[in-house]
Amino acid sequence: MYKWIQKIDSPEDLKKVPLAKLPEVAAEYRQFLIDCVSQTGGHLGASLGALELNIALHYVLESPKDKICWDVGHQAYVHKMITGRRDRMLSLRQPGGISGFPSPFENIHDQFIVGHAGTAISQAVGLACARDLRKTNEEVVAVVGDGAMTSGLAYEALNNAGHLKKPLMIVLNDNEMSIAKNVGAISQCLNRVITNPIYNRIRSQMEHQLAKFPRLRRFATKNLESLKNILVPGMIFEELGFRYFGPIDGHDIVTLVETMKKILALKDCSLLHIVTEKGHGCALAKTDAEKFHGVTPFNALTGEKVKSVSVPGEGAAYTKVFADSLVKIARENTRVVAITAAMPTGTGLNAYQTEFPDRFFDVGIAEQHAVTFGGALAKGGFRPVCAIYSTFLQRSQDNIIHDVALQRLPLVLCLDRAGLVGADGATHNGVFDISYLGHIPGIVIAAPVNEFEMEQMLRQAVEYPGVYAIRYPRAGVPSALSALTGSPFDIAEGEVLREGSEGTILALGSMVITALKTADLLKEEGYDIGVINMRYAKPLDESLILRSLEKSPHLFTLEEHVLTGGFGCKVLEFLERQGISQVFIKRFALPDQFIEHGSRDALLDHFGLSPQKIASAIALDIKCRKQDVL
Amino acid sequence: MYKWIQKIDSPEDLKKVPLAKLPEVAAEYRQFLIDCVSQTGGHLGASLGALELNIALHYVLESPKDKICWDVGHQAYVHKMITGRRDRMLSLRQPGGISGFPSPFENIHDQFIVGHAGTAISQAVGLACARDLRKTNEEVVAVVGDGAMTSGLAYEALNNAGHLKKPLMIVLNDNEMSIAKNVGAISQCLNRVITNPIYNRIRSQMEHQLAKFPRLRRFATKNLESLKNILVPGMIFEELGFRYFGPIDGHDIVTLVETMKKILALKDCSLLHIVTEKGHGCALAKTDAEKFHGVTPFNALTGEKVKSVSVPGEGAAYTKVFADSLVKIARENTRVVAITAAMPTGTGLNAYQTEFPDRFFDVGIAEQHAVTFGGALAKGGFRPVCAIYSTFLQRSQDNIIHDVALQRLPLVLCLDRAGLVGADGATHNGVFDISYLGHIPGIVIAAPVNEFEMEQMLRQAVEYPGVYAIRYPRAGVPSALSALTGSPFDIAEGEVLREGSEGTILALGSMVITALKTADLLKEEGYDIGVINMRYAKPLDESLILRSLEKSPHLFTLEEHVLTGGFGCKVLEFLERQGISQVFIKRFALPDQFIEHGSRDALLDHFGLSPQKIASAIALDIKCRKQDVL
Repeated sequence: MYKWIQKIDSPEDLKKVPLAKLPEVAAEYRQFLIDCVSQTGGHLGASLGALELNIALHYVLESPKDKICWDVGHQAYVHKMITGRRDRMLSLRQPGGISGFPSPFENIHDQFIVGHAGTAISQAVGLACARDLRKTNEEVVAVVGDGAMTSGLAYEALNNAGHLKKPLMIVLNDNEMSIAKNVGAISQCLNRVITNPIYNRIRSQMEHQLAKFPRLRRFATKNLESLKNILVPGMIFEELGFRYFGPIDGHDIVTLVETMKKILALKDCSLLHIVTEKGHGCALAKTDAEKFHGVTPFNALTGEKVKSVSVPGEGAAYTKVFADSLVKIARENTRVVAITAAMPTGTGLNAYQTEFPDRFFDVGIAEQHAVTFGGALAKGGFRPVCAIYSTFLQRSQDNIIHDVALQRLPLVLCLDRAGLVGADGATHNGVFDISYLGHIPGIVIAAPVNEFEMEQMLRQAVEYPGVYAIRYPRAGVPSALSALTGSPFDIAEGEVLREGSEGTILALGSMVITALKTADLLKEEGYDIGVINMRYAKPLDESLILRSLEKSPHLFTLEEHVLTGGFGCKVLEFLERQGISQVFIKRFALPDQFIEHGSRDALLDHFGLSPQKIASAIALDIKCRKQDVL
Repeated sequence: MYKWIQKIDSPEDLKKVPLAKLPEVAAEYRQFLIDCVSQTGGHLGASLGALELNIALHYVLESPKDKICWDVGHQAYVHKMITGRRDRMLSLRQPGGISGFPSPFENIHDQFIVGHAGTAISQAVGLACARDLRKTNEEVVAVVGDGAMTSGLAYEALNNAGHLKKPLMIVLNDNEMSIAKNVGAISQCLNRVITNPIYNRIRSQMEHQLAKFPRLRRFATKNLESLKNILVPGMIFEELGFRYFGPIDGHDIVTLVETMKKILALKDCSLLHIVTEKGHGCALAKTDAEKFHGVTPFNALTGEKVKSVSVPGEGAAYTKVFADSLVKIARENTRVVAITAAMPTGTGLNAYQTEFPDRFFDVGIAEQHAVTFGGALAKGGFRPVCAIYSTFLQRSQDNIIHDVALQRLPLVLCLDRAGLVGADGATHNGVFDISYLGHIPGIVIAAPVNEFEMEQMLRQAVEYPGVYAIRYPRAGVPSALSALTGSPFDIAEGEVLREGSEGTILALGSMVITALKTADLLKEEGYDIGVINMRYAKPLDESLILRSLEKSPHLFTLEEHVLTGGFGCKVLEFLERQGISQVFIKRFALPDQFIEHGSRDALLDHFGLSPQKIASAIALDIKCRKQDVL
């Protein structure tokens, strides 16, 4: 069926294809890609948009000697195929299969693991500096989407690159959309360049006119760094020290190849601006590009989903529960405003955006600014709710400390994807947030188990005079927990779900259901173990912990977070502050390591966090302690 | 002596001065400022450079109704004087006195506490959005130095501001130098604008020529957003959506006032570019601007320091010890490269820079890029040493996790100013780093007590295959510790400094000297307490802890860091992992709160961390435990 691509197992194989035949190669990869991703799910739109670019790069470069730094990396599926992973594409993002992102541990042609936006230029500058220190001569290329250009990291790197002027090529892949519609001045500026034909016409007219005035022209070429500075569309990049080329059609593969060859031959610090269409060549992916950013398996002909496993779990996704609660609260409280960093759909805020467009701010992929800006909105009298994935909020550590907490300003942080995220893997797991937030003075860290608690916590949060973080997993609300609609509760108020005389499991958020199942299993084994839904990692419900110690000195903490600095650690710290030493405590949490992609339940089990494994460990622990005492 | 300023205790008083007399007012403030700072120490250069700006802002605005957001904030001393704090200027940065930075808890005219760079534009955008939601009409102004413009946060905010186009004014205070000589493409670009008179000439010539071609001009004005876009010097800001004005002389106070009035009347999203001279009007501060960035008290006539208390403590500053060790190691190991984020002198790296200019990278105020770039240098085969103050490294949390640790790349992080910093206060205290680094898989966190350990640790660090952080205080090496030059040690190897049968103090880094003094005091009281220099917060010397438990179940941890998630917490976690419960442990650390400026020793004492207070607490603890047992 495939004439060309079945023979391509390396960049060398690709280079054997005549230039004129590359469009055929592209067509085959496009068909193959849609076939695969319709079965596996994945980031289809981005890889379709950058498909010709993937091919052209390997056609002109000699990877792995030459280095390609992908930004975010979900546009690199065809790169994966060209570099020997075509046969494994049906394992994409599957447990044990290849990653949805580049990874040097998977393939020598992948320089870095990527998943967060804005890193590629930094990395390219670093590789170029290393090359020049080593006095070797490989090419270094960064591939960056226009969305990533809104991130401060990308700018810091651009600024540094323009200063150092090391030979490297940045390919700006401009599809006028990162995940959602792109926002921010830089995207408007790029858009103006692309869409205004007059711009190009007037430019050439001006050049023509200038030619008539040799003295003026002489001044220009002599005294300005380059006349281009004031005439080319990409002046912002020229100002920053780059040689700018473009914009060119990123789906015209022959032009792409020829242009890149010329640019690389210049050995300069250059930026090539290409224009592509997300989902190009796939009617379904084009028509609903945001929905098709990351897709679950679908019927390649009709576009219908073949299974609906966007989140594991039974009930409504926590994302939706959050979004619905926020809209409800915002109807009553006009001071509530919402902020997203380029994730209106991912965070569920699109519903809020529709109803309250004036009180909604999408700041682009700019998590630092999202938080500092939120602090200022609070200073201005509002109650900002900033919804950012747990893993991306890592970028805002200093902003939370310096620009909000230190100012004694209120800010609600809603950490979606807190815990294991499944197919996206190590770059997206949100398993560090309690550690990186826990030390912030005055912070509340809450974790709801159901709809009722989410709303309660959000209501507390928009009244709290400091930073209030709510973490919830990429999962659905377990139906056994939906039913738990008790009475309203205060900050730091947990709930005893089950009394037990031989020990107590203190469980947080997504692990409360696991704790209940564990207690059931232990009951069958003859152990009487209590379960407390702690609700808060900070501040803790200290009186409930003390009460449970009156019944039994055995405490077990349970959380979907790394061990170090997590919720269990907070319990240890409480016991020390109280001077309590006669306690047998054991923490159940994820190990201090990076965790690959895989199904959430399977990974939890693998790390000993399934009800069965926890029950076994608890039973063993109690048995040992009893023997110690005897 | 002072004709004008003695009558100015509020912005209203200032406005009573006729415009033509403002230069006299400026001259008086300049003299007063030099007099004060020569006695108190402080950020003299910046406040002298922005002196006319401070006055002009209060002349045209109605603070506190109108909002001034200062970036970094050390340029706002005259603002402090105008807003009623002139009489307290001699208490500047003194214990109990006014802060060296703006603070709303000190004065209603200060909007935010600031100290880290790049926040002001974010904050101005937030205040402007809040204003427009509230439908009020106050002005919002951000004052930003050119150095802060290299920070990603400032760019994220610029990008968002240019998109939202809320009326606000950014004053870009361009002194071509942040703390050290500014670096980066944006500063080159600004510099080109200022220094090239031809640029302005050709611009007017082109405008003149364009006027002759009405059709061309018509195209331009009609079809481009503004003809200005391709003709003004600040095109980079125009491209980002701002109306750009300038550059103008920032010391010409009358022009400043008139220009700002006109700009504010436009009610647009505007940027005023002013050029100032750091240390303007003070020969001493001008001639050595970097040295005079932050000064200790000096003789206002001769410039001589009147006391040499730049760091507390007896011996060489840890900064210098680090710098000397690094140079020594870099001579032997050519793979060692160094990175600073605009702090070559503050971090001591200037010595390294002089000797190894090719292996030295100053990336500007860009802590995110510094780390990601460092990861790529490591990928390219080098051993990067990234020296960043503990408080500023908060910006790099995600970069350390995602761009280095996850990649299994080596990077050395040298955290200067880890602990209490003294006069700079809450924004600069480095007391969260163990918490925000501790959970990173594979990280080493070390804390040397003397020259020997610093060199040992740096040698380990440049060989370690992961992230290796070294934290050290803004202090001098105590002479009692300089002498401790034992044998080489491995990672996670502590040292018993003193045996004791009634308990053991596990001390980290800067608190080892305190632990020794505490043990001496306790000895006098009849308590036999041991001291271990733990050297590492992670990984811990577990065998030493177990050995000390064989002698006594009393453990005391001691660190210059907040309690939550700190070194003591790591000890609690170790005991839990070991299943050890019969231990009496007490942690000594800073409380979980923001700590104001003051002398380091006084603050440590205030928070119970002086030898006397720790000794009392330990004695009490042991007494109570004995009673419990009886």
